This record gives sequence, C-alpha cells and structure tokens, in this order.
Amino acid sequence: MGDDEVSNKQIIFKDYVKGFPKESDMILESSTIKLKVPEDCNDAVLVKNLYLSCDPYMRNRMGILEGSYIDSFTPGSAIKGYGVARIVDSSYANFKKGDLVWGLTGWEEYSLIKSTEGLFKIQHTDVPLSYYTGLLGMPGATAYFGFYEICSPKRGETVFISTASGAVGQLVGQFAKLSGCYVIGSAGSKDKVDLLKNKFGFDDAFNYKDEPDLNAALKRYFPNGIDIYFENVGGKMLDAVLLNMRFHGRISACGMISQYNLEEPEGVKNLFNVVTKRIRMEGFVVFDYYHLYSKFLDTVLPLIKEEKITYVEDIAEGLESAPSALIGLFSGRNIGKQVVVVARE
Amino acid sequence: MGDDEVSNKQIIFKDYVKGFPKESDMILESSTIKLKVPEDCNDAVLVKNLYLSCDPYMRNRMGILEGSYIDSFTPGSAIKGYGVARIVDSSYANFKKGDLVWGLTGWEEYSLIKSTEGLFKIQHTDVPLSYYTGLLGMPGATAYFGFYEICSPKRGETVFISTASGAVGQLVGQFAKLSGCYVIGSAGSKDKVDLLKNKFGFDDAFNYKDEPDLNAALKRYFPNGIDIYFENVGGKMLDAVLLNMRFHGRISACGMISQYNLEEPEGVKNLFNVVTKRIRMEGFVVFDYYHLYSKFLDTVLPLIKEEKITYVEDIAEGLESAPSALIGLFSGRNIGKQVVVVARE
Repeated sequence: MGDDEVSNKQIIFKDYVKGFPKESDMILESSTIKLKVPEDCNDAVLVKNLYLSCDPYMRNRMGILEGSYIDSFTPGSAIKGYGVARIVDSSYANFKKGDLVWGLTGWEEYSLIKSTEGLFKIQHTDVPLSYYTGLLGMPGATAYFGFYEICSPKRGETVFISTASGAVGQLVGQFAKLSGCYVIGSAGSKDKVDLLKNKFGFDDAFNYKDEPDLNAALKRYFPNGIDIYFENVGGKMLDAVLLNMRFHGRISACGMISQYNLEEPEGVKNLFNVVTKRIRMEGFVVFDYYHLYSKFLDTVLPLIKEEKITYVEDIAEGLESAPSALIGLFSGRNIGKQVVVVARE
Repeated sequence: MGDDEVSNKQIIFKDYVKGFPKESDMILESSTIKLKVPEDCNDAVLVKNLYLSCDPYMRNRMGILEGSYIDSFTPGSAIKGYGVARIVDSSYANFKKGDLVWGLTGWEEYSLIKSTEGLFKIQHTDVPLSYYTGLLGMPGATAYFGFYEICSPKRGETVFISTASGAVGQLVGQFAKLSGCYVIGSAGSKDKVDLLKNKFGFDDAFNYKDEPDLNAALKRYFPNGIDIYFENVGGKMLDAVLLNMRFHGRISACGMISQYNLEEPEGVKNLFNVVTKRIRMEGFVVFDYYHLYSKFLDTVLPLIKEEKITYVEDIAEGLESAPSALIGLFSGRNIGKQVVVVARE
C-alpha cells in the first residue's frame, strides 16, 4: 500500500446467477485505493460510502440481461447500487469535497465514480441521512411517481399494495391514505402486518402466507373490488388481483419480486379481465421521473417534518453484512427498508 | 297463427357452453310474432332484422359470466347480437316505422326490442347497409377508439395487429397507415395475408400458423421492436409480443380470441417486460365510447367516399346459416367481417 493509499473492502460480484441467489455469489475482498480522482479523469468524484441500499431490482442485475433498462453486474467487480456517500475528492465542478450525495455507487468503502449524472447532491441534512437510500431516494421517488403519476388516485377509491411493508410499499400506503383512499396491504409475516396496521395507518392488512386462496382473501378484504393495485410481486398475486379489480381499475407495475428467482416466470392466466374491466396496467421505471426529483422533495420533506409520514428501516451494520442483507430481501427477512451502514460519517 | 301474426324463425341458444362451441349449441326454431309493439310496451320497437353480425365477444356470452360487462345469453331464448334492422312498429318517439337502425337485436326474423338505448338510427344509406354491422358499427368504432384513444399513435411508429384481417383488425391497420405508422398484421391463412398486403395496404403480414416460434417471427418483422400492439388474441402471441415491445410501448387490449374456448386460459409469462419497458397495456370496451359515435361517423364516412378506406365482408346467406357462421369465427374460416343476411330489405 503506497503512502497515499488506503485499504478498501469491497463486495465482489462472483458470477451470473440463476435461481435463488446466495450469499456466496458475493465475496468480500480487500483492495486498496488512492483517495484522489486520477489526473486524467474529468468530471469524476471519489466518495466514501456511508449507507448502501438493498433493493429487489438488484436481483435482475445478477442475471444476464438483454435489452433491459439496466445492465448486468460485472463478474469480478464490486456490486453496484444506490447509496449515500461523502465526496472525498472531485474533478466535477458541481460537487466539492465534503458534499453529501445519494445515487449510484459501489458496494465498497470508497468508490471512484465517473458517471456523476447518477448522483444527487443532498441539501437537507435535518433528516436521517440513511433516508436518502429509501424515503428520500430511489424507493421514495418510486412510490411517489408510481402512485400519483400511474394510479391517478381519487378520494374514496380502494387501494391494494403487495409487499406493503417494504421500502416502496410502506410509502405508497401512506400516500394513498393522504389521498383519501381505503388502503389494504399484504406482507409475509405477522410483524409486518402489525406494522402496516399500527405504524403506517393502513386500513387493514393480511399475511399472504396465511391465505391458501388469494382470490378468496381479496374478495374478503375488498367485497366491492380494487380500484388501484400497486404491483410489487407478480405471479399468483397478480392473477388473484385481476379477478378482483373494479371497472376502470389501474395497476401500477413497479416490480414482480416473486418472479425474479424463478428459472421461468409463472404464467398469469386472468389477463382477459384487462379487457372486460377496462383495466390500465402500466409499467414504470423511476429513472424516467428523476427530473422531477426536486418537486418530490418539496412535497415529502414537509410531510416528514409534520410527522404525516413515517418510515421504517432495517439496518444491517457493516459492509460485510451486505450480501446477507441483500439475500434476505428475497426471503422477506427484512422488516422495512433494508439499509447497510458502511460508515456513519 | 292468428291473422295478425307472422312466422318468425329464430336461432335459439340451447345451453351454456364449455370449450369449443358447436353449431348444435344453437337450434333453428319456428315461432310466430305479432308485427305490433304490445299496447303495454312503452318506448319499444318491433323490427325486421336485415343483417346480423358474428363477433368474437359473443363466445363469452355463451358461457356463464359473473361481474362482466355483458350478460350471458339466456338458454331457451334467441341469441342476441348486433344487427341492422328496419322498424316495423314503434312506441318510441325517436324511431318511426320504416326507419333503419343498427344495434343490439335478436337472431330471428323479427324482434321486439324493449331496450332501445342499444339502437342507433342509420342516417346515411349511400353505403352498403351491412357496413353498419362492421365498418360503421360496433367493430368499426372498436377499431377507431381502440386505436386512437388507447394507442396514442405517432407518425413513424411500428404497429402490430393480430387477427388483422378480421372485422376490427383490417380497420386498425388502415387507420394506422393513415396515421403514418409502419404496420404489420398476422392472420391464419395465405389468403388473409394476401388481403392484408394487397387490399388493406399493410406494410407486411404473416401467417402465424407458419411460424413455430412467434418470438423469432416478430424479431424478423420488427427488428427494432413494436411501439403499438393491437391485441385481439392473447395467450402465446401476447407472450411473444411482450418480448418484442419497445420502451414506452402501448398495448390496446381489445380481445383475446385464442383464449375464449379454453377451459382454462393460457398463462402469460413475460409480463415483467411491462415494468422494464414501461409498457402501458389498457383494456377497453367500445360501449364506453358510443357517446362519440357521431364524431366517428364524421371521420370515417368521408374516408369511405374518398376510397381511403376499404372493407371486406364474408357474407353468409340466410338466418339458418348463422350458427355455422358464428362457429366459423373461432376456427378462422371467415375472410373479413362475418355477416349473416336475414333479408335485404
């Protein structure tokens, strides 16, 4: 290690994954890094990573992707993902040493980031910094734009949210309540269901693992049907929801986590309901809305300060806990937004 | 038969159908009818049916429907469907004896229609009257509103249409060409493919029965992907289309004829593409647009007169041919819009 180099632990992506990912698909390695942006690197930053975000979409990057909106991870390189970081050195005029940013970084202690267009400067630090991996970051914007832009909610409508206690779902539910909707969520444990009802103010919630017949469960919870479905899981749940949608219902297709680890996706059989019920099912990717991020912040920051919105995080300590934290998402081990703390400052 | 009664042949719906319908699910019966609206029937009409329409959605009415946008047919009663008819007697102020109407009537020589809200007066008779079962009736409005309202076409976009030579598809293709789109259709025979290319002006067309790998076929015909899919078939075709949609593509879900005769629908596996490609898939039912019917006529009548739009019908002669004509839809026997002539005036 040279005088100006420091040790840099990294979580290395081993190789493309099929089926359920394992912790051993990622390896903790120790390397070194100079805490300077190289001389020939214009518009780049060297950051110290503070908080890293575990998100379901990352599973897709572990596979071989073609024509998708994102690239696969590179075997032999550090995992990439959202995080909060502090600028250590910069050749990019908009960021200077000491600035806090959130956006796309690496799963390592320090990262050299050459694509600074994926980074947002953090201007408001009177909220927990880790919120910029969740409530105030990609998942928060996902919930906000995916709900308001795609679902066109109206007061009094019924809203169903799957994986409702996750990073996105807990917020969609709260936005829906603020919009005057009747809101029910599904989750995978009693603790999560309690959280939905008691902490996030959902009108009701159920544990999908306790429901052998999802169609019957939805008929029980929504005797008059569902106006809006915020789709995070796909597969059997989507099939049951289609049977219970109301005329002119809207489905915001945010993700389909139940399908990511299958060799072949489940078939969805009830799509003819889309025709007969005039359903609008629309996919979206939050990247398309990032130009509206400041509008989102202007709306959400006051809601946090007025305690009209709350957020639950599941914090894993230390970079070495990151692989386990990420894998835990797919078995639903986390309660709330899964964050990994690399360093607190 | 009383002095004021006439014979009235009817096609009676026998009983609810599972699987592929057969001609024997319908029975030709002879009854009698008075050619007068009964005295206690306000706002009703007695019509002589001229042209009857065979439409794929009718298959759904042959099954047991719950919570759908339409009702099942009634076993023991005449089949209901769209048709063109002449008013023989009326207790409804808006229609008088001799008027021509199109709308929901019965599969019989004469019908007493108590729900006149399903009837439109025919004002323009300088086109073939049978067009009001197709180009100027329900299928025409379906094509027009389903394409313009749901697909939001832009000049230069690529459009794919399944069952493209049918009552709706042939018009969607012509509307798409008039909108400056690149248009390809699929159909189930060489004759239909020739019709698409040579009569309707599609840029290209293929016989889906000659394509064991629909995904490969679509990749060949749309090397840069599909912006707009007008969905008439569902199932395997939809699955292949999802793999070939472009970012921000639109799917107008009009019908899913490949699924109507299955005991259980096929599963559609590639729905995650809806998320990653930000696809909007939207179902619609033409009833919702009937209040705009006169706008539709104002647009389409001049296009017919200027020969900018053409229409192909498959005419079956006589009420007794109606069951066979309807069943033929599901094996793709018809070429163009399937019409049954009961009487020509």
